[in-house]
Amino acid sequence: MIEAYILIQTKIGKAPAVTEAISAIPGVLRAKSVTGPYDVIVRAEGPTVDDLGRLVVAQIQQVEGIYRTLTCPVVEL
Amino acid sequence: MIEAYILIQTKIGKAPAVTEAISAIPGVLRAKSVTGPYDVIVRAEGPTVDDLGRLVVAQIQQVEGIYRTLTCPVVEL
Amino acid sequence: MIEAYILIQTKIGKAPAVTEAISAIPGVLRAKSVTGPYDVIVRAEGPTVDDLGRLVVAQIQQVEGIYRTLTCPVVEL
Amino acid sequence: MIEAYILIQTKIGKAPAVTEAISAIPGVLRAKSVTGPYDVIVRAEGPTVDDLGRLVVAQIQQVEGIYRTLTCPVVEL
Amino acid sequence: MIEAYILIQTKIGKAPAVTEAISAIPGVLRAKSVTGPYDVIVRAEGPTVDDLGRLVVAQIQQVEGIYRTLTCPVVEL
Amino acid sequence: MIEAYILIQTKIGKAPAVTEAISAIPGVLRAKSVTGPYDVIVRAEGPTVDDLGRLVVAQIQQVEGIYRTLTCPVVEL
Amino acid sequence: MIEAYILIQTKIGKAPAVTEAISAIPGVLRAKSVTGPYDVIVRAEGPTVDDLGRLVVAQIQQVEGIYRTLTCPVVEL
Amino acid sequence: MIEAYILIQTKIGKAPAVTEAISAIPGVLRAKSVTGPYDVIVRAEGPTVDDLGRLVVAQIQQVEGIYRTLTCPVVEL
Repeated sequence: MIEAYILIQTKIGKAPAVTEAISAIPGVLRAKSVTGPYDVIVRAEGPTVDDLGRLVVAQIQQVEGIYRTLTCPVVEL
Repeated sequence: MIEAYILIQTKIGKAPAVTEAISAIPGVLRAKSVTGPYDVIVRAEGPTVDDLGRLVVAQIQQVEGIYRTLTCPVVEL
Repeated sequence: MIEAYILIQTKIGKAPAVTEAISAIPGVLRAKSVTGPYDVIVRAEGPTVDDLGRLVVAQIQQVEGIYRTLTCPVVEL
Repeated sequence: MIEAYILIQTKIGKAPAVTEAISAIPGVLRAKSVTGPYDVIVRAEGPTVDDLGRLVVAQIQQVEGIYRTLTCPVVEL
Repeated sequence: MIEAYILIQTKIGKAPAVTEAISAIPGVLRAKSVTGPYDVIVRAEGPTVDDLGRLVVAQIQQVEGIYRTLTCPVVEL
Repeated sequence: MIEAYILIQTKIGKAPAVTEAISAIPGVLRAKSVTGPYDVIVRAEGPTVDDLGRLVVAQIQQVEGIYRTLTCPVVEL
Repeated sequence: MIEAYILIQTKIGKAPAVTEAISAIPGVLRAKSVTGPYDVIVRAEGPTVDDLGRLVVAQIQQVEGIYRTLTCPVVEL
Repeated sequence: MIEAYILIQTKIGKAPAVTEAISAIPGVLRAKSVTGPYDVIVRAEGPTVDDLGRLVVAQIQQVEGIYRTLTCPVVEL
């Protein structure tokens, strides 16, 4: 499995709803509202980088209220 | 009490109105229009970090004309 | 307990060593090397925001090879 | 008088010392350590923009441990 | 007179029209389309920082097609 | 010929469609979806910098779903 | 094979030397000096994301004169 | 002739000296200290983009006290 952290900026006032909706998506391990330059930080996993890419584009980005997502794949160095 | 600076980017031309509206919100100690990468800088306080988070999401972000907010909690190191 | 994600940029070539060193610090729940604008993403906890601030400044930032840290406190909205 | 907020990034581990040193500089009204993309947020004033510029370059930036400063002049719109 | 450079990001495809419209605003000395993180760079002047602030908010930001402006006042150090 | 890399941020969920549409534009040598702070990275060429600028503004930016473009001209140093 | 674009910021004046040195590293398909917020843009490939991560940390980041690297893995969506 | 704006971040306290030194470089039309995310903004020209690139790397970046430069070529759209 490949893991990634996804740093999310939401539209104004949408952080709580986005956090809740993303938590329910299969493949998402954890989703938390935060303060700072990002509004929600998600940990997700998928079999390959392409699967993770599709999880982000086809599912996470479909959640209403999302403005920008930044995917940071975990690497074992 | 926990304090925070909130750095705000407004929609085009909205800085004056946003500054005025935020100044009236309970918990907001100060709000000023500025030049640079941010349009308004606010100082606010709340009993806990979660309360500050709710003040930002449930009240400040509801002011018409806001584009992005960046909350910087004050810490006593 | 208050939780935070800490997004870390390391000096060139130092990501593996920084990830390993941080993992051993009490209060750090998880530390992973990632690709993207950050090199390491950490999850940590402390009794208060000030304690988290001190954990970052007095312990995490003392690890050799760190360039910038960005603390994002988790908030329950 | 012209006022400005100065957003400061410090070198690793230096936030407490920088905050304390800046607080003692004439013209500085307030200096606080924060979390987020900045480490210290300062409020200062000077008779003109040039004076504020010199306060930053000739005094604040001389404090040991500072990495970047970002001056945001307050404007009355 | 106080001078400032104003770094402008336009909405997609609007750079030429924005450059032309801004060039006609009194107080604007020069406006050019550029490549890079900004789309238009403007040089303008006004009697005070507040006047420059109003020139930006009340006139430049009213030009159709502007997305973000970043004002950098010139300082004589 | 002058070459440039164009780093593109798309609107939420649009990366695949934007990548495909841009690949078909004359002057575009390569277009790939990526993860990280950008969603699509393009390599394009044109006879002069102005031609490249027009290729970006008049053609690439007309593709539906684009949010920001950042042009980085290649230089032979 | 997994591909990635690596966006590199070099130390002052080092772009030409860094571009040349990186071009010689096995796994690097292309390296070009550019203007804009990055100084060199590289295209590289490796069998897995971890291999790409190691190529960056263990080889590319060892080239003298590099300041920051930003790895953007290519994804087939 | 091709023109460019060069946005410069200097090392702490070096803005005045950098501005003065750059003003004397042939090809530099104007150099001013500013406040905001940049410390000096320069306007320069050269026969081609490559010449401009070399002016930046071989001359401007050799001035003591420079930390980052960002070249924004002017384009006639």
